[in-house]
Amino acid sequence: MSDQPASTSGGDALTIAQALIRCPSVTPEEGGALRYLQRLLAGAGFEAEIVRFHEEGTADVDNLLATIGSGTPHLVFAGHTDVVPPGDPARWRHPPFEAEIDGGMLYGRGAVDMKGAIACFAAAALSYLAENGPPPGAISLLITGDEEGVAINGTRKLLAWARERGLSFSHCVVGEPTNPEAIGDMIKIGRRGSLSGTLTITGKQGHAAYPHLAANPLRGLARVLDALHMPLDRGTAVFAPSNLEVTSIDTGNPAFNVIPATVTVRFNIRFNDLHTARSLEIRLDKAVAAALEGTGLRAAFAFEPNPAEAFHTEAHDFAALLSEAIAIETGRRPELSTTGGTSDARYIKDYCPVIEFGLVGQTMHQVDERVAVEDLATLTAIYRRLIETYFATVR
Amino acid sequence: MSDQPASTSGGDALTIAQALIRCPSVTPEEGGALRYLQRLLAGAGFEAEIVRFHEEGTADVDNLLATIGSGTPHLVFAGHTDVVPPGDPARWRHPPFEAEIDGGMLYGRGAVDMKGAIACFAAAALSYLAENGPPPGAISLLITGDEEGVAINGTRKLLAWARERGLSFSHCVVGEPTNPEAIGDMIKIGRRGSLSGTLTITGKQGHAAYPHLAANPLRGLARVLDALHMPLDRGTAVFAPSNLEVTSIDTGNPAFNVIPATVTVRFNIRFNDLHTARSLEIRLDKAVAAALEGTGLRAAFAFEPNPAEAFHTEAHDFAALLSEAIAIETGRRPELSTTGGTSDARYIKDYCPVIEFGLVGQTMHQVDERVAVEDLATLTAIYRRLIETYFATVR
Repeated sequence: MSDQPASTSGGDALTIAQALIRCPSVTPEEGGALRYLQRLLAGAGFEAEIVRFHEEGTADVDNLLATIGSGTPHLVFAGHTDVVPPGDPARWRHPPFEAEIDGGMLYGRGAVDMKGAIACFAAAALSYLAENGPPPGAISLLITGDEEGVAINGTRKLLAWARERGLSFSHCVVGEPTNPEAIGDMIKIGRRGSLSGTLTITGKQGHAAYPHLAANPLRGLARVLDALHMPLDRGTAVFAPSNLEVTSIDTGNPAFNVIPATVTVRFNIRFNDLHTARSLEIRLDKAVAAALEGTGLRAAFAFEPNPAEAFHTEAHDFAALLSEAIAIETGRRPELSTTGGTSDARYIKDYCPVIEFGLVGQTMHQVDERVAVEDLATLTAIYRRLIETYFATVR
Repeated sequence: MSDQPASTSGGDALTIAQALIRCPSVTPEEGGALRYLQRLLAGAGFEAEIVRFHEEGTADVDNLLATIGSGTPHLVFAGHTDVVPPGDPARWRHPPFEAEIDGGMLYGRGAVDMKGAIACFAAAALSYLAENGPPPGAISLLITGDEEGVAINGTRKLLAWARERGLSFSHCVVGEPTNPEAIGDMIKIGRRGSLSGTLTITGKQGHAAYPHLAANPLRGLARVLDALHMPLDRGTAVFAPSNLEVTSIDTGNPAFNVIPATVTVRFNIRFNDLHTARSLEIRLDKAVAAALEGTGLRAAFAFEPNPAEAFHTEAHDFAALLSEAIAIETGRRPELSTTGGTSDARYIKDYCPVIEFGLVGQTMHQVDERVAVEDLATLTAIYRRLIETYFATVR
């Protein structure tokens, strides 16, 4: 056992989670969290480097890449130590950065989103290494300090930086809190895309008593709404049907006797991988132009920048490995889902297959964010089993 | 000629119009205008009484009823001496209350709406009386000081007051500026009704990523708009089809990821006499309820108070007399129209047949309101001819 790490003392998930929560790493502050992880992982034989990224107009942000072993398969755990602000600390039953345990619950900002999951993965990796020595391949922890903020100096840049250093990843688990109710409920195997925009319909102002001298944009609105609401698809094996929700329609005309010149229609689309943001922009533009043909009304779209594209993993075997580990440790068969918002998985998907599984999300971003101490042990056991079966079966 | 009025000096239309414009009778101020008319008409033998009406919460307003002769037929000329505010007098080429003549035009607030027409009718009546003596029947001038304001202490009360005194009217001409371009263009033989309202559609707020947990009122909007825009009728012999214009749709939701709870739809209906305001309220309520059936959305209407009802005169012979007078004096055959907004004719129609004919409306309510001096002479000649043929033919 000469390859065994020198020490795993203090390497259990609860101890690591408490240490991380006590670092006040409100985005984009590092708060000591990454340096603590760096020391912990380096002590177990990881090559652990903190990388600071800079971009004009944003705060500099630290990130951590820690790797042990080399070659393939290369299993990556991705997460973030930055947390959202705690709000008024007086509203917390237990202070947000003191990691107190009460009634079997560990309290603190980041307990579930996602210092807790980082602690579980680190503890699982340390435990695996203590028992087995370095893996037949590599394990990395890819930890950013810029997920809750603007996400400019975070995972996206860290991935590019790792590729430049010659690293390539085989599979990735993101530790976001994916479970609605209990550990084992849900693995995310992809995410829908999200595109928002504003449509302005323009006609000609006039007097309500003389509509033939005006062109009322509200006359064209029913046809435009019908066009916007036309089904985008019927869904896929892994995705629900794409959906467009109109979120606001506004005219701002206080006078009953005035026909307005313009109306704006704001909307958001959650879409599956049958579309891209760009393909939807083109489709909507055509559909609305057709709806308004011959009406004398004009339509102009303004789409919000940086839409999220839809994606899902093709690595069904990898998801099956994680499902099996979950089933053994919890007795639950997790749902494979593509619901919900976006995460840094949208960047990782361009480098390797990625799935997401972590703690129970109920208290994330709230006052009294907390995790059951028992859940930390369960998630650690799941991650540990995943690491073992991964290196036993993936070539 | 013993019955001839004592004096018609200063009785030409231009002189009267100038005298009236110099009275600053911005609604609801009398400004001396009614007292001037009272003196002028009493001097020609009219029984001329100024009546002040009062109602809690509104300004007291003076009105004038001047009658000469008795019995039937009883020809009434109706008008108002109150005017809309002039705005900034510095923006006028000629001061709004000085009645200056420049380039053949008489300038001043009320020149066309409608002190000018009152002057023409008074001059026509004085001229007729000077030549013929009292009519075989009666002539009245029914002049209010509350048309441009809230119209509570004006024509409606003056009509009731006259009825209580035993007066009954046979036919009425209102001197509103009815001509779009030139004297003789258009007689109004009725007016469309006008009804305004606000429809609130209510659903259930939610997150744009989870539309199945919400009820988006904007989802029902296309069907509601289609229901509102359904043709109300095909028009009648004297009226254009009724029309509903949606004038504003508002949500006020700034967040792309939020499904709003409510949307408001504001609209105005200009309707013909196939409907009443009340019948339209019932019809819209049913149509929108049907459109939203099964959607889980609720609709609530709030209609503006005091809608104007549609009406038109059945007195085709009377309109023909006026048309003939116009044709002789101008060479034009006026269009018999029911277009445009509302006027006090909506109250008079309950007492006797009423039509409207006056000056050219282009500058009404604007800076530099003005009338061609020549138009005053033409309109006086038309009114004078109407009075003559009226008493020569109507029994």
